[in-house]
Amino acid sequence: MFKEIWQQRLKLVEERLPIELTSNPSLDKTLGEAMSYSLMAGGKRMRPILLMAATDAVGGRGEDFLTVACAIEMIHTYSLIHDDLPAMDNDDYRRGKLTNHKVYGDGMAVLAGDALLTLAFETVLRQQGASDAVKLAVVREFSVAAGQSGMVGGQAMDLEAEGRRIPLEELRRLHMGKTGALFRAAIRSGALLAGADSKQLAALTEYADKFGLAFQITDDILDVVGDAAVIGKPVGSDERNEKSTYVTLTSLDEARNLARQTVDEALAALALFGNEAEFLREIVRRLMAREK
Amino acid sequence: MFKEIWQQRLKLVEERLPIELTSNPSLDKTLGEAMSYSLMAGGKRMRPILLMAATDAVGGRGEDFLTVACAIEMIHTYSLIHDDLPAMDNDDYRRGKLTNHKVYGDGMAVLAGDALLTLAFETVLRQQGASDAVKLAVVREFSVAAGQSGMVGGQAMDLEAEGRRIPLEELRRLHMGKTGALFRAAIRSGALLAGADSKQLAALTEYADKFGLAFQITDDILDVVGDAAVIGKPVGSDERNEKSTYVTLTSLDEARNLARQTVDEALAALALFGNEAEFLREIVRRLMAREK
Repeated sequence: MFKEIWQQRLKLVEERLPIELTSNPSLDKTLGEAMSYSLMAGGKRMRPILLMAATDAVGGRGEDFLTVACAIEMIHTYSLIHDDLPAMDNDDYRRGKLTNHKVYGDGMAVLAGDALLTLAFETVLRQQGASDAVKLAVVREFSVAAGQSGMVGGQAMDLEAEGRRIPLEELRRLHMGKTGALFRAAIRSGALLAGADSKQLAALTEYADKFGLAFQITDDILDVVGDAAVIGKPVGSDERNEKSTYVTLTSLDEARNLARQTVDEALAALALFGNEAEFLREIVRRLMAREK
Repeated sequence: MFKEIWQQRLKLVEERLPIELTSNPSLDKTLGEAMSYSLMAGGKRMRPILLMAATDAVGGRGEDFLTVACAIEMIHTYSLIHDDLPAMDNDDYRRGKLTNHKVYGDGMAVLAGDALLTLAFETVLRQQGASDAVKLAVVREFSVAAGQSGMVGGQAMDLEAEGRRIPLEELRRLHMGKTGALFRAAIRSGALLAGADSKQLAALTEYADKFGLAFQITDDILDVVGDAAVIGKPVGSDERNEKSTYVTLTSLDEARNLARQTVDEALAALALFGNEAEFLREIVRRLMAREK
């Protein structure tokens, strides 16, 4: 059931993304191709899926807000393109494909990221069936999550932490920004679009933050014990790169305990919801095994 | 009078920018400094000034929309930081100061630009005295102007035109995107904030497009005949860099004629406005002499 819903919604997202991408013509053909190359490169589409699941949880229909779901995937994709740049993480491959700058050059990759970030905001405004007030609230969620107190801030911390051992508290703040903020925006936006009341929104925000933390800890665990084919990078790369992670800063056992505890807290945050939140429960449970 | 109004509003913008910049704390100290370094590096603040002048023209008070005026300057600044990168124009100096990446490194400069672009959208939402519908309209103006059919698209065309002679029509489209789109967004946003009707908005849009064209042609002329100290770059640099410009693609005389004609068209577009549009008239007249 869980996998079926995921696959079905993933298909909806895959079909809608190219439509939203070309809603405004690009002045430059190569730019349009570079944007599409990374946006359509596959992936689990976890943020759109989370957004729709949050809509379901408060009694809405996730499929009604595909436009905003696509917008958040644009923000995620832009951040991957910029993070992969030589001046940042300098990665040549992502999901088994050459990174954007390896195909289109560094300058065009910067621009493709810029354009996807910008397009995300324009896309939110095209969402049907949402009031002006809700659209503004979603723009606010996206801009706060993507900006200096969120993703860009976390990436800047990461850039400065390179090759340096950082305290666990700093690592937590780094990931809250770099990856946690957009999970939070996805889940809160899905809830806002469905007209969540303040209690529901607070509960889902708590869930989102625990989800983000559990995601990161299990990611760090997988880097040590995972299957290279599943995690998409060589096992043990964090330790070789002297990266601070939940495993290197504590131990594998402690990280596993923290992950389990965090998953339990995420589930507890959903106590006020019924069956409509079952997908959100299952996705965080499966983080431990990281299979969908 | 013209210079006094400009100076007075420039001062308001300079005072407000650091407040808007720090409305949300940055997760990373260096990132915050890098954003501030470029945002507070001076300049004429032409886009905020144009925005406020458009508000005046339709009977509003430009000073009432300082928040949005600051937001558009953030978008302008982000574009300068990214354009200066080694992967793009590779400039070491701007306005007599080291460019962002020369001070903070390429990675941090990419992030400072990303964060300023993102912050611009968040800032629009903080504007007091504007309805939700108008704020959404301004977000739309900004995102369309900044994206693949505007600034980023024009910059991508520029990247691909390097060292290649391009037809005049292509040059026009390139500049409509790279610089024209944000002038248009500034002027239209100022008008929308003041509640312009559709006739006023159409007239100001026409004015904005003529203004953008006149700005670019006179910029190209100044590169040939200007004073290096005034234009902030060596005279004749476009020709040495084999850049296609209105002067290199036609002649100095033809470019001057086209500039004069375009200024006249910009003035004609303002025919339905009275004295309230005098600042807009004066700013386009002065483009020919490029002194404020």
